[in-house]
This record gives sequence, C-alpha cells and structure tokens, in this order.
Amino acid sequence: MERSCLAVILAAGESTRMKSSMSKVLHPVAGRAMIAHVMQAVAGAGVSSAALVVGRDADKVADAARSAGVSVEPYLQKERLGTGNAVLAARAAIESGYDDILVAYGDVPLLTSETLNKARQALTDNVDVVVIGFHTDKPAGYGRLLVENGELVAIREEKDATEEERKVTWCNSGLMAINGRRALDLLSRIGNNNAKGEYYLTDIVEVARSLGGKAVAIDAPETELTGCNNRAELAYIEKLWQERARHQFMIDGVSMIAPETVFLSWDTKIGQDALIEPHVVIGPGVTIESGAVIHAFSHLEGAHVSGGATVGPYARLRPGANLAANSKVGNFCEVKKAEIGEGAKVNHLTYIGDAFIGAGSNIGAGTITCNYDGINKHETRIGKNAFVGSNSSLVAPVAIGDDAYVASGSVITEDVPAGALAFGRARQETKEGRAEALRARAQAIKDARKKS
Amino acid sequence: MERSCLAVILAAGESTRMKSSMSKVLHPVAGRAMIAHVMQAVAGAGVSSAALVVGRDADKVADAARSAGVSVEPYLQKERLGTGNAVLAARAAIESGYDDILVAYGDVPLLTSETLNKARQALTDNVDVVVIGFHTDKPAGYGRLLVENGELVAIREEKDATEEERKVTWCNSGLMAINGRRALDLLSRIGNNNAKGEYYLTDIVEVARSLGGKAVAIDAPETELTGCNNRAELAYIEKLWQERARHQFMIDGVSMIAPETVFLSWDTKIGQDALIEPHVVIGPGVTIESGAVIHAFSHLEGAHVSGGATVGPYARLRPGANLAANSKVGNFCEVKKAEIGEGAKVNHLTYIGDAFIGAGSNIGAGTITCNYDGINKHETRIGKNAFVGSNSSLVAPVAIGDDAYVASGSVITEDVPAGALAFGRARQETKEGRAEALRARAQAIKDARKKS
Amino acid sequence: MERSCLAVILAAGESTRMKSSMSKVLHPVAGRAMIAHVMQAVAGAGVSSAALVVGRDADKVADAARSAGVSVEPYLQKERLGTGNAVLAARAAIESGYDDILVAYGDVPLLTSETLNKARQALTDNVDVVVIGFHTDKPAGYGRLLVENGELVAIREEKDATEEERKVTWCNSGLMAINGRRALDLLSRIGNNNAKGEYYLTDIVEVARSLGGKAVAIDAPETELTGCNNRAELAYIEKLWQERARHQFMIDGVSMIAPETVFLSWDTKIGQDALIEPHVVIGPGVTIESGAVIHAFSHLEGAHVSGGATVGPYARLRPGANLAANSKVGNFCEVKKAEIGEGAKVNHLTYIGDAFIGAGSNIGAGTITCNYDGINKHETRIGKNAFVGSNSSLVAPVAIGDDAYVASGSVITEDVPAGALAFGRARQETKEGRAEALRARAQAIKDARKKS
Repeated sequence: MERSCLAVILAAGESTRMKSSMSKVLHPVAGRAMIAHVMQAVAGAGVSSAALVVGRDADKVADAARSAGVSVEPYLQKERLGTGNAVLAARAAIESGYDDILVAYGDVPLLTSETLNKARQALTDNVDVVVIGFHTDKPAGYGRLLVENGELVAIREEKDATEEERKVTWCNSGLMAINGRRALDLLSRIGNNNAKGEYYLTDIVEVARSLGGKAVAIDAPETELTGCNNRAELAYIEKLWQERARHQFMIDGVSMIAPETVFLSWDTKIGQDALIEPHVVIGPGVTIESGAVIHAFSHLEGAHVSGGATVGPYARLRPGANLAANSKVGNFCEVKKAEIGEGAKVNHLTYIGDAFIGAGSNIGAGTITCNYDGINKHETRIGKNAFVGSNSSLVAPVAIGDDAYVASGSVITEDVPAGALAFGRARQETKEGRAEALRARAQAIKDARKKS
Repeated sequence: MERSCLAVILAAGESTRMKSSMSKVLHPVAGRAMIAHVMQAVAGAGVSSAALVVGRDADKVADAARSAGVSVEPYLQKERLGTGNAVLAARAAIESGYDDILVAYGDVPLLTSETLNKARQALTDNVDVVVIGFHTDKPAGYGRLLVENGELVAIREEKDATEEERKVTWCNSGLMAINGRRALDLLSRIGNNNAKGEYYLTDIVEVARSLGGKAVAIDAPETELTGCNNRAELAYIEKLWQERARHQFMIDGVSMIAPETVFLSWDTKIGQDALIEPHVVIGPGVTIESGAVIHAFSHLEGAHVSGGATVGPYARLRPGANLAANSKVGNFCEVKKAEIGEGAKVNHLTYIGDAFIGAGSNIGAGTITCNYDGINKHETRIGKNAFVGSNSSLVAPVAIGDDAYVASGSVITEDVPAGALAFGRARQETKEGRAEALRARAQAIKDARKKS
Repeated sequence: MERSCLAVILAAGESTRMKSSMSKVLHPVAGRAMIAHVMQAVAGAGVSSAALVVGRDADKVADAARSAGVSVEPYLQKERLGTGNAVLAARAAIESGYDDILVAYGDVPLLTSETLNKARQALTDNVDVVVIGFHTDKPAGYGRLLVENGELVAIREEKDATEEERKVTWCNSGLMAINGRRALDLLSRIGNNNAKGEYYLTDIVEVARSLGGKAVAIDAPETELTGCNNRAELAYIEKLWQERARHQFMIDGVSMIAPETVFLSWDTKIGQDALIEPHVVIGPGVTIESGAVIHAFSHLEGAHVSGGATVGPYARLRPGANLAANSKVGNFCEVKKAEIGEGAKVNHLTYIGDAFIGAGSNIGAGTITCNYDGINKHETRIGKNAFVGSNSSLVAPVAIGDDAYVASGSVITEDVPAGALAFGRARQETKEGRAEALRARAQAIKDARKKS
C-alpha cells in the first residue's frame, strides 16, 4: 500500500534582500515562479497534498503553487519565530494524519523529485527524521551534519561547532522528511531556549533522539539545494537551471552551437536532431519538432515549429504561431496567432498576425497584415500557392485565394479570388531633371534653419 | 584641514601589443576610455589636480582624462627611461607642492576610489611611501612585497628573488602614494644602475628607507589592479567591469535573467524592480526607471525609459528616445530623437525619428516617419489617441491631430486635423484569372535565361 | 629529401550517443564538418594522402574530408573489431609504402598541424611508434603512458593499472605516428586475446618493443585532443574552438567587447583595428577589413565588409553582400547578393537583394527591392548619389540613375533616369471629423462579436 505524504512548504520569507515589490518565491526561474518549480518536484515525488506556509502575497503564492497540480492549502505564518514554528503553522494539516511529512522551501527551485523520493524512502519504520544534506568545499556558514555509525546525531550550527566539527563538509540544507505519525509530537517539543529565542526545525534531530528515535541524513547535489536571497542568487539559480536543461537536450540529440547563449523555459520541448543556433530565447509554451532549425537571434513564445521548418535569424514567433513542416519564417519577421502552411515562406521584414497562410504560398519582403483597426483584430486568410508581392499591406478582414497574385507595393482591401491578380498601387510618374530643383529647395531650407 | 593631493597618471606607453592606431588608454571599457575610468577613481579620492604623463596621442588622451572633472595637465615623456623617470616628467607639478602624491596608470581602469583613499590614509606622518599590493595565487612574474614588522622593506623583482622570496604571494601593482613634501627628493635619488639602465619607481621604497623613512603596503583586490597590454586583456577587463556592475544592480533590486549576456555602460542607471532580459546591450546615456521591462535583444543608447514602459524584444532606442510611462516600443522598431507618450504603442517594424507621439496613440506595424529629405531632417508630430494604420509613410514635416485616423498603407504628406480620417493609397484593382498568365510570362523569362 | 606520409583517419564510429541522423564526423564545428578540421590539420603537417576508414555515410564523409585539399581514399570498415583492426581496413594504402603513417580520428577536430608535425619529427630512425599523449588533472578512465628512460614501455588501460600506475597523469590520446616501413608488420601482429576479443591499436607499443623496436610519447594540450561522443561534447569542442579563434584575433589587433558572445567560422578573416561588438554571429565566407565596425546583434555570411564600413546593429549580411569603404548597413536591414557603394547608406528596415547601389546613395527606411516575381530573381540598379525615399518599393528589374530622387512611399516599376524625380504614390485625401464614425463602426463590430 502506498504511503500517504504531506509536503509542508515554507514560503513566508520577507524577501527583504530581493528588494522587490513581490514575494521572493513568485520570482520566475525559466519562466515559472520558483514556488511552482518546488511544487513540481513535490508532485513528482508522489505527493498530492501540500501545506503552504505563507506570509506576504499569500494568495498569489498559493495560486502559483497550485500550477503544478498538487492540492495546496495555505497557512498564514503570523509571527516569525523560526523554522520550527513556521512548520507548525500547518498544524491542522499535519494533524489530519499522513505517513510521511516532507519539509521543503519555496526558494529552492532546483530541488528534484529524485531527492524527495530518496528522503521518503529513507524514512523507514525505525527512522523518525531524514535530513537532506549536501557535500561542499566551502562549508563555512552552514550547519554541519554530525553522523555516527550511520545515524545523524546532530545538526551543529557553525557558531556552536568545535574546530573538529567545522572540518565536516557535509552540510544541512534545511529540507527533511519526518515520520508523519510522530511529527506533531516531535515538532511540539522543539524549544526556543537559544540566543534569538526562536524555534529551530533542526533541533528536531536531537528531540527525536532524546525520545529514542533515530535520524539519518541523505545526500543531494549542492546545486540542487541552492537557495535564493537576492537577485544575484536568482540569476545564479537561473543559470544552473538552464545548464541542466540544455545539457539534457544535447544528450537527447539536440544540437546547440553555443548552449550558454540559449535560454529555455520550464516547459520547452525540442525534438532530436533539431538545431538551435547561438543567441536564441525560448519563452513558455514552445514545441520544436525533430529536424527543425532555429537560427540565431530568434525569439519564440507559445509557438509550434514542425519538422523541417526553419526559423530566423531574427524571427519572432509569438503565441499561436504554428509553423507547418518545411515552412520558413525569416529575418525581422513577427508571427502571432497564425498558421504558416507547409512549405510556405515568410522571409523578410514581415508582420503576420491573426492569419492563415496556405501551403506553398510566398509572402514578399515587407508585407504587413493590417489586423488591427484600433479596436478589433481581424483575420487575413491566404490560400495555397499564392504570391503576395513585397511591401504589400493586407487590410484585414481580407481573403486571398489559392494561386492568387498580389502585385508588389499593393494595399489590398478587398478579397482576391483564387487565380486573380490584384493591384493596389499608384501609377509611377517620372519628372525628368527635377531632382536638382528639389535638392535646391531642401538646401534652401537648411540654409534658412542655420540662420535662424 | 584637508590634505592636498596630486595624482600623477602614467599614460605614455607605446601600446605596441594592442596593435592599434590609437593609444591604449583611449580604448574604451564600458563605453568610456580607460583613462577616464582611472580619472573617475582619482576624482572620487578627493583629488582635484592630475599630472598626466603622456606620449602618443597626447591631446586626445588629455581630453579623455578631463571628462571625469579633474583638472588635468599633460606632461610629455620624451625618453622612455623607466617608471621612475616617467613620474619625473611631471616634475613641475610635483614641485608646486602637495601633501600627497598618488601614482597610478592609465591602463588600470578598474581601480576604485576606495583603494586610492586607503593609500592616502596610510600616508601618515612618518610614512613616506605606500605601495598598493594585491594577493594572488599566481605571483610568477610580479614583484614581491617584502614586509617585516609591518614595514615594506623592498619590492623584489622576480628575477632577483630568492627561492623563499618567490613564495611570497603579495605582489606589487605599481601604484603608490608618496609623501608630497618628500616626493621630489626621493624620486630624484632613484638610480639606473641596473641591467636595462632604467629608473624604476619601485626603488623608491629602498631610497626612502635609506634616508630613515618608512614604507608600508596596503592591499587591494587583484582584479581591481588588472592592467591592459593587448586586446585579450582589454576584453578581460571589460568582463570584470561588467560583472561588477551587473552584480551591483542585482543586489540593488534589478532582475537580470542572464546577466552574462547584458552589457552596460559606465553611466547606466536602472531602477529597482526593473527587468532586463537576456541579450541586451546598453550604450552610454541610458536611464531605465523602476519597473520598466527591457525584453531580449534590445539595444539602447542615450535613451530614457520610464516606469511601466516596455521595450523590445528587438527594439533599438537611439539617442533622444524618451519613452513615457507605460508606453511600448516593440520588435524591429527603431526610435531616435522622439517622445513616445504615456501608454502609446509602437509595436512592430517601425521607424520613428524626430517625432512626438501623443499619449495613447497607436502606431501600426511597418509605419515609417520619412524624416529625411536627403538634406534636412524634419519633424513628425502626432497627437493623443491617434491611430496610424499599418505600413503608413508619414512624410515629414507633418502633423497628425488628436484622435485622427490614418488608413493602413497611406502615404501622408499633408497635416491631418484632429478627429479627421486620412487616406493616401490607391484603390485596388482585381483582374480575375490573370495570375496564371503572369506566371507563364515569368516562367518564359526563366526558360530564356536558362538558354542564354 | 622529404619523407612521404600517409594519414589514416578513423571515422567509422556508429555515433550512437550523438543520436543523430548523420555520422558524427559530419557534425560541424565553426561551420565546418569535424572531419574537415582534422583533414586541415593533416594537410598542414605536409601530408598529401589520407586513407579514410569509414562506416556510416561513407560518401558524405569522404566528400567532407576532401574539402581540405588532401587526396582522400575511403576504406570501408566491415566489422567492428577494435582500432587495430580499423587501421588495417586501410591495408592497401599502407602497403603502397610511406615513410610515415599518422593515425588520427575524425572526431578530434581541434587537432593542430603542429602536434602532427611534432609526432612525425619524433619518428626518428630507431623509433617505430610515437604516441601523442596529454597531461590531465583527471586521468580517470584514460589509458596511462608508462615511460621509462625516455621510452614508452606500455599504454596501460585504467582497469589493468596498478594503484601506482593510476597516479600517472600522462594519458593516451589514441593518436600516433608509426614507422611506415614497419607499420604493416606491427599492425598485423596485434592480437585480440582480451576480454572483448578486439584488436587494440595501443598494443602496437608492446608489439614494437617485443621485436626490439622503440616507442616514445610526445605531449599535446589536452583541449586539442578532445574527442566528441555526444552533442554536449560537440558544444564543448565548439566552445574551445571559438575561444582559440577569438583569442588569436584579439592578439592580432581586433577589438571584441565581449568575445564570448561572438561566433566565428573556420574561414573568418578580420583585419586589425576592426571592432566586433557583443552578440555577433559570423557564418562561413566572411571577410571584415581593417577598421570596419560590426555592431551588436549582426549576422554575416558570405559577406565582404570594407574598411570604414559600419554594419548593424541588427544587420544581416547574406552571401554576396559586398560593402564598399565607409558604407553603412544599419538596423533591421538585410543585404543579399548586392554591392553597397562607397559611402552609401542603407540604414533602417530595408531589404536589398540582387542589387547594385552606387557610391553616396541613400536608401530610406523601409525600402524594399522587390526582386522576386515568384519564379525569377531580378536586379535593381541604383546609380551614384541617388536618394530613395522611405518606404519605397523598387520593383525589379528596375534602374534608378545617378542623382535621381524617388519620393517616399513610392512604388517604382519603371526606370528612373539620372537626375529625375519619380513619384509612385496616391494623393492623400483627408475627411475631417470622420475618425469618430469609423471608430463607432469598429466598436459596433466588437460589440457584435461579444454577443455571438
């Protein structure tokens, strides 16, 4: 029978050093609030209920936490009396009875389900507390995990450590798993008899042992447990996240010429043998299929790129851009809420919004779908194998039929039937020898300006 | 009473390894000549007069040095007889009598005022020389600071050092403070009895001690004292400068998703809670106010971005671009010498130059202000809540009134009154079934080309 | 007399971990197949013939290998029986008689000619085998080079090594030089009496010694010998290549503000005192002359940029773009197969394809050469000192004469003689007070949409 588990997520920090108008745990990593990353890890560890200990921005934090699919109940931390006290803000949830309790933090977004699972698995019948630790070259400032005969005997804060204890390089992350049937009793016995008068969750180790219980420590990579206290640390966490994601994509067969210049989102999907060139930014909601090419300086959000399609350089795909196989969106082109049909080409300096472009059509350089009348957005529908000449304006709502041909420089305001040719441009007038007079007039203006 | 201080800045190097057509100290770091950075540090240390020892490009170097507000007198170094000799090129300045003399180099642009102040403060009554040193893991090649009982007894060049002395990791940066009343005497006594026949400024330590004076060393971070001898080192200094600046902004509450891809200038100002996305280049003269968002791939110079305004992705703001609160300049848009009013939108493929756009106006995709007649630049003035349809050409000088409406694809050559509707486009003609003939003709051209 | 040399290049790997639809050695580094880089190094070591041991994609691999100018004969490796067996796939080439045999790998693209030359030079009369080794801090997993009295006595695989031998940090790269007159005999004596039943090329050391011959090892930088087994390693090799190339350019007098954001190709040429700003991508076939400036976010392929010319920011130069001295191609401009004359300017949001622009001409913002009729590409020819007004469409084939003037917003379909003024735009109509009615109608549409 599966063991029930409650996650208690501490997310009530004041975030002072973030110097931010919103709670720290709402700041995004890879396009998603930190708290949502934590909840994703929690979800992946088979946890379906979480007690969220919140302070500032409680509603927004709870909403963000819910995005990972775990049922979330917020508990307001009224006083700031230490982590032991913070966990007890969720007393009602703990009381309702779970086999396991996981304690994690809202600002540790690189946490993985594997580590949480490992902690739960270590919570065997005779173990009351499992502390998640990490090994580090630079332990200064961290609490040290003191282990004897496989048991964790104490978490020693730096300031209380002997010289010998300070040499220990296995440190406390603050995360832990607790026997759910014993948790309330253990947590309630944590005292505040210390300099700051706070209740430290770490004291649970000694409390458990004093009652004859057992504590152990497990190990996780230091990077995974990196917390966030200011925006420099936020950037560092983003960097670690990106490195992890890029590496996995490359191992899975995606080519990246300069991965350190490619930015992915938490939900990015890229197929094998796709190529991502340098300097590419991928926002949320993007799928790039196998064999697609994303050229340098491209920016994608909410877009779908099919196999064989080519994007960029300098292409911007916005939400709803849907590129069919072998289509091409080229430089200085923006595509929003539009289908680009199989093999269709939108190559240069073009804005395509609220549009359908049929297979094999060619949209000339500088074409603009005039989709907005100041109040409404209108659609442009272009058939198959149509040709839209360069620098055309397609004033939506408008439809251009299969095989139709729009002359360059046209303003198209009425539908063009299939196979028709449409013009919408003035006839050229040429005035021989007149350029000089025009320049002379401009020069006179310049001279007059100088005088004034 | 405040002590008077003269800075002697050595900037006469030949810069051979820079392989450059200009003096090394004119090469920019963060958009400003290296020498100007040094002078900024000097100014911040309360120094108002500097003697600049120059060689190549003397006038340009002096001009660049003056940009930091310190009074600068250039002295030409005629012969290249070592650093001790170089300082004496400024003999006239030294003679004029200062309490303190600071000696610094034009190619050490990361130097801070804090370090210079620390050196001045160490110049107590019984101290003649204060050498600025740095600790390093890799001392090879540097002169070592030999200290006994808190006194600097010598600066030992690597080649003259004993094996024991080579283990010293405190090294000489070449920068120092000298008792201004004793300086000329000390400098004059430096000899050139060495292999190269040069006068080494470092010998001043032993000269001072031989006269019963005292020398001490102070410490500064190694990175701050990095010098520049070739363009790889210039790039390294730029990297250190950028890292320092980005870090400080993040600590102050600016979000940067990928700080290593954001490039700032020496005078960049960014408010708290602003967001700078990856791949952004900020040139000189830019202010970004609190809460503004700079999207990826944006490029700003001489621009002002108000709170709540949104820039990019792919926006280029050039000097004189002034974005009011909540305005938006979007992808593939260039704005130069133009006001974008509160809440106004310039979103796609647009060039706005020499223009005023009123609050709440919307400028359609592909709009171009035709500001140049080949000789003069002319202004475009757009009122409030106006709508300029996509792909319009606004031929300046021209004014569009409040609430006016310009139809898409129009060429506007005359003023549009407030509330008016303006068209400037040809009527569409559609010729049914004619696309095929046109394609047949094009195909015939293609076939003919192949044959020829 | 020069010694003859055959290079045997092993390029038959299955590349499974690349998860790729093509052979690993075809994957590009700096825009060129890995195998071609190896062949370039081989060519630079004075080798004119190579035996290429291939498996998958044999023809493509051989073609790519030939691109460096070395005569290449492919040999199919039929069975996968180890490196010793792989080299013997080229038995026919080895039999034809060379003084030296070099053995290298198709997936070691950072290999230099210097290292290969060093190996050949070490192949003196009494030396049968020269193994190329590297020193590393992390030898785990590599075969160790066991050297006694200057002779290489064995290459010891990690699993067979004693504890003492594992401390050796000089490791085997797998590359070697073999006495060409002895090679066949030595290779044939390599046995497969080991756990996997494979023929290991490394055994040649002990074979040679057992026959009274001598083996030695030479040293090369670890980075140069980096091999590629998956796409993360491919990206790492790209990074090393780029760092090497950027550094060399900077040492040679090219300024790069942020070299880590600039990507070069294998054949990039840049002159002294050129400036490359951050975020620039340079594809194959690019020459940038001395004193040119490449601004941020530019993308160049197959382009030539003359001295004093300025590119970008956000300029895309495609193959055949040829910028004369002091010309300028600015933001959001694309130039393809076109000459930009001396001092000519193409500054904003412009597409220039299949064109000639004369010296001193100015092409206004938003100008498009309409070079494609859906079937053919046509040319646009613009004379000297011409002015093309903003947002014009030049419908090719078309010619605009010297000093001609095209009014802004024109569609030009006929040639414009020298000195002529051409218009191709509709006259503006202004309807006072009509904007409101138009907005009211749009609002009605919006309201109707809401209801439906």
